[in-house]
Parts: sequence; C-alpha cells; structure tokens
Amino acid sequence: MGIVLGSNRYGKAEVRVVHVARDGDRHTLRDLNVSTALAGDLDATHLTGDNSQVLPTDSQKNTVYAFARRHGIGSPEAFALLLAEHFVHSQAAIRQARVSVREQLWQRLGPHSFQRRGEEIRTAEVSYDGDRAQVVSGITGLVLMNTTGSEFHGYVRDEYTTLPETTDRILATAVDARWRHLDPDTDWDLAYQQVRDALVAAFVESYSYSLQQTLYEMGHRVLDTRPELAEIRLVLPNRHHLPVDLSPFGLDNPNAVFVATDRPYGVIEGTIRRDDVPAAVGEW
Amino acid sequence: MGIVLGSNRYGKAEVRVVHVARDGDRHTLRDLNVSTALAGDLDATHLTGDNSQVLPTDSQKNTVYAFARRHGIGSPEAFALLLAEHFVHSQAAIRQARVSVREQLWQRLGPHSFQRRGEEIRTAEVSYDGDRAQVVSGITGLVLMNTTGSEFHGYVRDEYTTLPETTDRILATAVDARWRHLDPDTDWDLAYQQVRDALVAAFVESYSYSLQQTLYEMGHRVLDTRPELAEIRLVLPNRHHLPVDLSPFGLDNPNAVFVATDRPYGVIEGTIRRDDVPAAVGEW
Amino acid sequence: MGIVLGSNRYGKAEVRVVHVARDGDRHTLRDLNVSTALAGDLDATHLTGDNSQVLPTDSQKNTVYAFARRHGIGSPEAFALLLAEHFVHSQAAIRQARVSVREQLWQRLGPHSFQRRGEEIRTAEVSYDGDRAQVVSGITGLVLMNTTGSEFHGYVRDEYTTLPETTDRILATAVDARWRHLDPDTDWDLAYQQVRDALVAAFVESYSYSLQQTLYEMGHRVLDTRPELAEIRLVLPNRHHLPVDLSPFGLDNPNAVFVATDRPYGVIEGTIRRDDVPAAVGEW
Amino acid sequence: MGIVLGSNRYGKAEVRVVHVARDGDRHTLRDLNVSTALAGDLDATHLTGDNSQVLPTDSQKNTVYAFARRHGIGSPEAFALLLAEHFVHSQAAIRQARVSVREQLWQRLGPHSFQRRGEEIRTAEVSYDGDRAQVVSGITGLVLMNTTGSEFHGYVRDEYTTLPETTDRILATAVDARWRHLDPDTDWDLAYQQVRDALVAAFVESYSYSLQQTLYEMGHRVLDTRPELAEIRLVLPNRHHLPVDLSPFGLDNPNAVFVATDRPYGVIEGTIRRDDVPAAVGEW
Repeated sequence: MGIVLGSNRYGKAEVRVVHVARDGDRHTLRDLNVSTALAGDLDATHLTGDNSQVLPTDSQKNTVYAFARRHGIGSPEAFALLLAEHFVHSQAAIRQARVSVREQLWQRLGPHSFQRRGEEIRTAEVSYDGDRAQVVSGITGLVLMNTTGSEFHGYVRDEYTTLPETTDRILATAVDARWRHLDPDTDWDLAYQQVRDALVAAFVESYSYSLQQTLYEMGHRVLDTRPELAEIRLVLPNRHHLPVDLSPFGLDNPNAVFVATDRPYGVIEGTIRRDDVPAAVGEW
Repeated sequence: MGIVLGSNRYGKAEVRVVHVARDGDRHTLRDLNVSTALAGDLDATHLTGDNSQVLPTDSQKNTVYAFARRHGIGSPEAFALLLAEHFVHSQAAIRQARVSVREQLWQRLGPHSFQRRGEEIRTAEVSYDGDRAQVVSGITGLVLMNTTGSEFHGYVRDEYTTLPETTDRILATAVDARWRHLDPDTDWDLAYQQVRDALVAAFVESYSYSLQQTLYEMGHRVLDTRPELAEIRLVLPNRHHLPVDLSPFGLDNPNAVFVATDRPYGVIEGTIRRDDVPAAVGEW
Repeated sequence: MGIVLGSNRYGKAEVRVVHVARDGDRHTLRDLNVSTALAGDLDATHLTGDNSQVLPTDSQKNTVYAFARRHGIGSPEAFALLLAEHFVHSQAAIRQARVSVREQLWQRLGPHSFQRRGEEIRTAEVSYDGDRAQVVSGITGLVLMNTTGSEFHGYVRDEYTTLPETTDRILATAVDARWRHLDPDTDWDLAYQQVRDALVAAFVESYSYSLQQTLYEMGHRVLDTRPELAEIRLVLPNRHHLPVDLSPFGLDNPNAVFVATDRPYGVIEGTIRRDDVPAAVGEW
Repeated sequence: MGIVLGSNRYGKAEVRVVHVARDGDRHTLRDLNVSTALAGDLDATHLTGDNSQVLPTDSQKNTVYAFARRHGIGSPEAFALLLAEHFVHSQAAIRQARVSVREQLWQRLGPHSFQRRGEEIRTAEVSYDGDRAQVVSGITGLVLMNTTGSEFHGYVRDEYTTLPETTDRILATAVDARWRHLDPDTDWDLAYQQVRDALVAAFVESYSYSLQQTLYEMGHRVLDTRPELAEIRLVLPNRHHLPVDLSPFGLDNPNAVFVATDRPYGVIEGTIRRDDVPAAVGEW
C-alpha cells in the first residue's frame, strides 16, 4: 500500500493587531486576532524540505500589519477578504487562502477612551480560491439567561432516565453562531448588528419547550431578518442551573436558589438554511 | 529543633450559587461564587486525624445555599457578613472565618432575561473574629484603554535600557482594585457603583506620565468620593500595545497600527490610604 | 425562499467518569471525559417543542456511568464503541451516534497511588450509524522540542518578507494528531502506545528543513508502524523560540538565550494517508 | 483626613527565557518565567509623573536576558538571587527587590530533544533588601491521587450537615507547596528533588483520616528531610471524586465508578515550621 501526502495547509495563527483611526481628537478602535492558512502546491516542503514554494508564516504576519496600515480595517470581513485575495493572487503556488478573524469589541468611554466588552467576540472567516470568496460571519461568547419561560417534559424515558420533568426552569446558554453570506459585498457592520439583535430578541421572546426549539427560532429569526444569508449554524450549550434541594434544612425552594454547574453540559447543534440557495464550498 | 503546626485554615472554595428574586414577572438575579475559610482549634485533625472539631466543607457549602434561601442575597458584602458571623458563632472551635465572594454581573434584557456582563467581577471579602468584622470590596477584570494622552520619558537609563522615550502611547490595563471599609454597615451596592465610576473616570480623565501616576489618581479619586473608606489597593498590569515598525514595507506608522502583546507585561502595585485611620487586621 | 431545518444533533458534553478496577490491593485507574452526540429524526423538538423523540442528555450522562460499572472501561475506544452502539440500537429516532473521549493519563506511584501525567491527553472518537463504526484515535498536548537539528531557508521572499534565514533553530511543537482505523477491533492500548512512540521517535530523529517535513516524517512513520491505519492528521503549531538580540549589551548570543513567544505562532496541518483504502464516512 | 501613598512596587511580569547550554552535542535546557518587582523611593512618579527614579520595566526584562547569557541559569533560586542583588545594588532609589521564577520542567528524550513535563512547575522567590536575602522555593501543579487508604468520619454535625461518613474514599489533590530556606546558599536542585520526593512519599504512604492529617505528614516529612528549612506552607485542594449512585439502574457501586467534580472543592491550608528559627521577613 502506498503512503501519500493528503490535504494540507499552513499559516500564522493569532496575529494580534490593534488599529486606531484618528478623526481629530476622536479615535476609533479595531482590535483583531487574525489567522491565515494557505493551501496549494506544497508537496516539496513536506517531502524534501525544499521551501521554494513556501511564503514564511512570518511574512504572512507582516502582511497583516502592513495591510492594516495601507487599507485600514473597515470590518473583520472586509479586512479578511483583502488578505485572502492578496495571498492567492501574489503567490504562484497558493490555490486557496482562508483568513479567520476574531474581533474583540470595545465600548466607548470618551473621545479616545474605551472599555473592553466582555466575552462577546465577533468572528469572520473568508475562504478564497481565486474564483469565489465565501464569507462566514459569527458571534461567540454571548451568554444569555431566561430565569423562567422554559419547560422540559414529554421526552423519551429509557432505563437510564431519572430526570424529573419540569414546567419552569432556567434556560442559559453561550451563543456560538456562524452565518454564511451569499453576497461577498455588504455592509458587514450593519449585518452583524442586525443578526446579533435577532439572536438576542428571539432568545428573550421565545417561550421554550426545549433548547432545540429556541435554537430553531433564533436561526429562523436571523434568516427572516437578513434575506441575503444562506444559512446559520448554532451551537448552544445548555448551561444547567439546577434547583438546590433544601428540604434537609427544612426549607422549600420555589425556583429561588440554583447551583450553576460547569460540567457536564448539554450541547444542541443545528443548521437553519434556505432550501433554494447554492451549497457552501468545502467545510465551514 | 522541634517541628510544629503553624497557622492553618480550611474551607470550601467556589460554591456557585445563583439566586432569583421574583417580584411578580420581574426577576432579579444574583450570581455568586462563594469561598469560605475557617480557622481555630484545629490541631487534632492535623496531628491525629481526630475530626471532632471539624465542620465538613460540605456543610459549609450547604450553609451557603440554605442562607441564600433563608436571607436572600442583598449584596456580596452583606451575604458574606452573615456567613462569617454564623460560622464563628455556631462552631465552638472556630475563632475566625473569612468569606470571599466573586459576583458575576448580568445586564437586564427583559423582565426575566439577562446577558452576562463580560469579564468584570465584583468581589467582597469579609473576615470576622467574633469581635470585629473587616470588609474589603473589590473589582477585577475591568479592562480600560486610552489610545492617547499618555507619555513615558525621563526615566533611569542603565546599561540594559533600550526603550525609546515616547510622548504618545496607548495606555491599557485590567483594573484589579480592593478597598477596605471602615464601617461594616453601608449601602454596598451604591458604594460599589460609586467606586467603580470613580476608577473609570480617573483613568479616562488623567493625562498620564506614568502608569504609577494614573494609579495614584485613581486611588485618590476613590477615597475622595467615599469618605468611609480607609484605603484602596490597586494592581494595574501595563498591557503593552507596541507600534509596529512598518518601515521595511515603505510605510510610516503614526500610532495607527499596534501589536498587543501577552507577555511580558508591566505590573504597577500601590496602596492609597488615609493617614489617620485604624490599621487593617491581618493581611488582606 | 423557504427556511428549513438542516443537519442537527445534540448530546451531553464532558461527562467526567473515573473508574477504579481493583485487583486485590492493586488498583487500575481510567479517567475519562466523555461527550455524546445523537442525530436522527429530531424535527419535532425543533419545530414545535415536542420532545417525544428526545432522550434527555441527562439520561445519556447516566448511561455513561452505568456502562462504566456494567462493562468496565477497557480502553477509550472500546468504551466509546459500546456507548455509540447502545444509543443507535436502543433509540428508534436515532440514526447516528458519535462518542468522543478524552483520557487523562496517570502514572503509577504505588499499588493504589497515582500522579497525573501532565498535558498529554489520549483521545478517541467513534461514529456509528447502525451499520458501520468508524474509530479515530488521537493524542493532544504532547509538547516536544529539539534544541538543534532544524534549519529554515530557501523560502519565498516577497515584499513583506523580513525573516532571516537560519541553519540552526529550536523546533518546538505541541503534537495534535488523530488517526483513523480500518478495523474496529484491535488492541487499542497497544496501538496507542506504538503510534505515540512512532510520533516521538520521528520528531526526535528527523533532521528538519521545515516543520512540514517533520510532520510528513511523523505521519509516515506512524503508517509504517501500524498497517491497519488508513490515515493520520497532524496539526503542529510552530512554537517559536526566538534568539534574543543581546548586542545592545555587548553580548553575543550563539543560540543560547531564547524568548519563547505565545502569539502569533505558525500552524502546519497535513494528512498522511494510504492511497488504496476506503474513504472516511463524513467529516472526522 | 489626609490621603497618602502607601506601600508600592512595580516590575515586569512573565519574562519568558529559555536557556540552552551546550556540552558538545548534549544540550541542557532551562525554561523560566521570571517576574521582577522593585520597591523604594518611588513617590515622585506616583505624585507628579516624574520618572527620574524609575528603571523601566523594559530594562528589567532586558536584564533577565542579559544575565541569562552572562551567568547562565544554574537554578531558579541562584538566578533569582543574582537578579535581586543586581537591582538593589545598581539602583539608588531601590530598597528591595523581589524576583519570582516559575520553571517549566522538561524530560530528556535525546542529546538535544525534550518533552515537556506536564503541569508540575518548580517555583522560586527571592526577596533582597540590601542586607538579607530570603529564599522561598516551591512546587505547584503536582496532582496526586490515592484510590483508597483514606477515611473521613467523626466530624461535627450541625443542622446543615448531610455528608455521609466514609471509611474508604478517593483522596486527590494538586500539591501547592512553598518552603523557606534558612541558608541562601545551598544545592538548590538537590533540595528541590528531595523536597519533592518527600512530599510524594508522604502522600503515598500516609493512611489518612483527613486531608489535614496528610498535609501535616507531608510538611513534617519535608522538614525532617532537609534540616536547613525553616518552614513549609501547603495549600491542598481536596479534589472530590464522588461515588455515583447507580441504584436507580439496579447496579451497586463498590467504589468503582466516580464523578470527578470541578467546583466546589475543599481547600486545606497549613504551615509546618520549626519552633526555634528566625521569623520570615515580611509576607511570603
């Protein structure tokens, strides 16, 4: 049996670039974590250590910084598109570039003062093959909780089922969503804000009989809001908040005192999509 | 030379309690991480494994949950005071209790819907010895940045100094502050809000020649704002944002493109205190 | 355009199970972190909140613990196979189960005493669709360093390239490898040990002109060692150790003093495979 | 009431220095994370931003790298002593220096090949005031487990106690120990090895009625082994492994299947010391 090199790619991960745009005294901040990955004719370096087709990852990093100065950072998506196109067009051996961005968000405190906004991260991932650019935007680290308005019952009971049914529980999750754009040219900041608002509104407004149902309503709301989106993938951990049994201490617990557990946790994953749009190129 | 048992204590760390107070449809949320530590006559368990003076840490955990139901959670400080007093008064062997609370903050989205507020954690630490309760409040994880208004020059130059002087740099830090109260009875939520506001305002408004100077102005502002505070301790990492040298690419960099570095980082620590108040009891 | 539910699954993540097998005084330890994910006819819960096809994730967790008692834990792979088959065979609505295991390794100190072995994690992932079981084993967190025997030069130089060529550098990585078995019945512990040894030996013995070359030699060595493996995927971060420029202090630095940087880092990803074996089922 | 500047210090945290010593083909590796903190006459920078007494933290970092080249790294303690003395002796304003080192350990795989040894970190902290050097060595991240030989009963039962007594439980902890030397000149590597061995041996060999008892035996063993040590401080989390109740599934559980919980956990802290030695200088 022959042993061969299969698919491969390489790049620089977690290039931290902060860009400050100055409009007089008023500054605007973009704080990105950029990762690049290039694929193409890279057999030689694997098989013999011949690097003549390899653009060093250090150069990829330098390109991120130089592009930030040359073009500014309009949005994570626009910046990733510029970089992905550059690598494919400028490197003979490279057939595909993927640029991933995680944006740390900051809240304005003054003309040139900012406070970091917690855990919420805006993401963008661009894949470009010289012909077509696929743009996937996303959000992660958005932690939401409804302290009521959630039930869970009527489920399968097998020999390992001990969970009591409930008509009132806490529902909490950390939203991890990614949505695929059909059009590589849009107002990316507006799109992000509207998708984020739709996710939050659907979570807050849904009366829930399962986290799956909430997930579906969140995804549906997003596609309703932004017609140019092909599909959205949601990964929603079920962050369990369990009512504490206080009866040993002569106390009731009418959904007042909960223990927040770390592990294990449920994970609900689902895609909501339009049924009449082109499929994605490759995995995303 | 004789080998003896020195100071010791024990307790339960990181008890996660979430309390929901219901005012009709409108819920209020407190999300705490509580740690207890008890000290006293505990030689027997160390020397012989005789546990007759040991209240199990599991019971300490149960007490946290039962107290949340019995008394509600008015504030981290008030809840910690109740617990500390309970342990000292109810356990014959216990001479001192320390209760530490970290509060995860949530932002309201609706009557019973909430979004977790990022990295900012409110802290409280109460020490009680049967006679006197010492309350220390704090904040951690508050990440602030000024993109201008900071200089650094005129410093010592020794044979290992290569740092260029600058009259315009980014100043960024993650505030870690703790302040000691003189009065164990106050409006803890209001005090927290005012101290937090004073820290942020001083950071934003200070023109800075060193992070030490900013630290002092932050601490001074807090003590000016709340006369009942004895002292405040600040630990401010200097989260370096270094301008990238883009000259190899034919580009200037007028403080537009920065690399945010993880390690190493500067650390500035200082206490601002009143000169005429009682000293703290023990370490804090 | 119609909006529809696409692919979806759900399960319990990070079930922590520790199993102690007692052979008289001599104990054997297995310390697993198990995650389950089930897919099938799950439209109802998404669209209407009807849970009549949903086995609660809590029951999945219970199954892990009950199976640990009923069957013991022979190996991560064997345990995952048992669980995956159980879920598909026992649940009418479930068409596919994926069980992922991360094993924390412990080193024996005595008959019933153990020390945790650092960061190295053994992994196993089983997918079962009622017909075919696909087994992927892996390792992560194996951090290796060669302090010499590594060069990097002859690479592409574009306008953003400033990296100096080197004929002697540190090569360090944290091995993340996963390999796909052709046979769902093997001596899993022996296979793991031999693959691990092959990875380490190839890293140590390779004189390297690029991390890609080292990656290829590692993967090739594994497939040479274990003929029943179809393919292996390696993700190797390049953990940069940069020689410090000590010339401002009148000192040379003949590859003696390095700064270990956290971010950014290179990432080299590649698959080494046999060219005459069945393809994998789905993503892995 | 007057507001004044209290105690303060500043320095550079987490300087990552890797030193390779070459004895022909055979290399020796030291991998340190060094933090410095200086205190003295630093009022001016706090009160007015006058930095004329401030050695930049960047210069402190440079000193670490230059000293690694100039002096090599004999041991964490010896290296920290050199640095602490240098800062106090060379800087007029500095009265005290504290240098903290965390050493990442590596296991040899070949003449110049190494594997990182997991989570165990060796620590050293030196305080020097121009007159006296205090050296504290330590270990952290050493995770140990006995699967039997541990009981817990006979404890206080109050109204919040529900814990069942046990005569056979798992005892697991992550050792965090620091020991204070009386002599600032010793064979530091040998001392570390002997203390580490004593801690492990005492944990493995102790039949335990409480973690406090195990803690005491560990500390006592260390002081017995190394007569030049003044005291040792141990912080031992009690990493709970709880037997799973399998009775709902018709299964017994004779201490075979456990859930390893993350939070909450017990924490046992204690100092074992000689009764006839000089006290420490300041906090440690």
